[in-house]
Amino acid sequence: MSKLKYKPKQRLKLNPPIIILVEPQLGENIGFAARAMLNFNITSLRLVNPRESWPNKQAISTSAGAIDSGKSNVSLHNNIEEATEDISYLLATTARNRDLNKPVLSPIEAAESLLHAQIKGMSTGIVFGAEKSGLKNSDIIKADAIVNIYSNSKFSSINLAMSVLIISYQWYSRKIEFIESGKLPKQKNLKKNSANKKELNFFISRLLTLLSDNDFFSPSEKKQSMVNNIEAIFTRSNLTPQELRTLHGILSNLIKS
Amino acid sequence: MSKLKYKPKQRLKLNPPIIILVEPQLGENIGFAARAMLNFNITSLRLVNPRESWPNKQAISTSAGAIDSGKSNVSLHNNIEEATEDISYLLATTARNRDLNKPVLSPIEAAESLLHAQIKGMSTGIVFGAEKSGLKNSDIIKADAIVNIYSNSKFSSINLAMSVLIISYQWYSRKIEFIESGKLPKQKNLKKNSANKKELNFFISRLLTLLSDNDFFSPSEKKQSMVNNIEAIFTRSNLTPQELRTLHGILSNLIKS
Repeated sequence: MSKLKYKPKQRLKLNPPIIILVEPQLGENIGFAARAMLNFNITSLRLVNPRESWPNKQAISTSAGAIDSGKSNVSLHNNIEEATEDISYLLATTARNRDLNKPVLSPIEAAESLLHAQIKGMSTGIVFGAEKSGLKNSDIIKADAIVNIYSNSKFSSINLAMSVLIISYQWYSRKIEFIESGKLPKQKNLKKNSANKKELNFFISRLLTLLSDNDFFSPSEKKQSMVNNIEAIFTRSNLTPQELRTLHGILSNLIKS
Repeated sequence: MSKLKYKPKQRLKLNPPIIILVEPQLGENIGFAARAMLNFNITSLRLVNPRESWPNKQAISTSAGAIDSGKSNVSLHNNIEEATEDISYLLATTARNRDLNKPVLSPIEAAESLLHAQIKGMSTGIVFGAEKSGLKNSDIIKADAIVNIYSNSKFSSINLAMSVLIISYQWYSRKIEFIESGKLPKQKNLKKNSANKKELNFFISRLLTLLSDNDFFSPSEKKQSMVNNIEAIFTRSNLTPQELRTLHGILSNLIKS
């Protein structure tokens, strides 16, 4: 395992990851999640279409002061694209293994990946799905990697707030260890300035619209899986804004021909 | 860091730690704790004087099947001595740092200590205090070491079930890593067959009774802190049953003189 030596004199600003809950069902779990996050200095919580109305009394109660004290910053969003648009390195949590051709990380590997991105000044986030159903594949596709919490195969359903806690705790304790030791295993493929999800999504939707107009998606019942594959390719490439401009140029050029 | 190489051919039986909740207030938290434990294959939960009656509906509900399915083993106890009598290596969790002359471990160090004890076949346990008040110093004294979860100093109150989760998760994930790598940092001072807490408490209470009969504890307002100090000395020595027999012999001999 090769190490990256962190120089203590070099001031590191490690912005905590943003936590995104997609369609959380119970206010109680939102509050518990906010409390667990704040225990480990993570303060930015984004809710995509929570089932219950917001602000929510039960969430405020179980947050034990995290929400109503203003120490945490909770915001509402209409969809996952909007909730992640300023994020450059995004992780998605899943309970089951899904065959999506994405790197699958343990919580500790996830913590290390987040730290690498944060050292580079990137904005980072972790998406969690609803209590019962988890994330849809079409949401997971948008992430740079998957986090999988290894647990008892005969009782693997981890409560939503508890999953948020594990990731928060692991990020925080790995960060402390890194700051004390200056060591972090090397990471491949993480570019200094990856494009954020808004820039990436803009390119992907432009491409998909063009392809759709040209009747690329045929037969139509295969469209969704074809879209997923295309999205996965460009997400995995970890593109910089400059590379995205190049790709836009290629697109513009091709449609003229 | 020197390593202990585990030989994969040698069959390891690593009994999970026993979780002991002292005077838990909310059934809800007991159920959440049981669920979090079972997520990480920890099934033995001991309750010392829970505030609410047992069995408890809310506990069963939040355990998501962990309690009522019979997958977990929950038992009631009258005091911490009874709940820990068969345990040879005991950890106590605290939120604040207390000056008790005990080793203070991070969750990952606690996981490693537990694994060392479990490799030696010792029965292990972790005590958690009540939601509001935590453990009393007189309870912590009985433990071999203290576990401290490093967290946001401005929002450090971690929910009881969440604390149980962190320790359970950390033990389980460190165990998996150990089984895969065969590596665990060396540990000092852990004897192969430490006496269990029943044997140790029997000796300590015999000694304290003799001292009390001989008016050792004077002035009486200092008695509790003197008792704590004596208990701490013998707990820290990590005595074997043979050594306890020797100490009993010394006591018997001295009172004859």
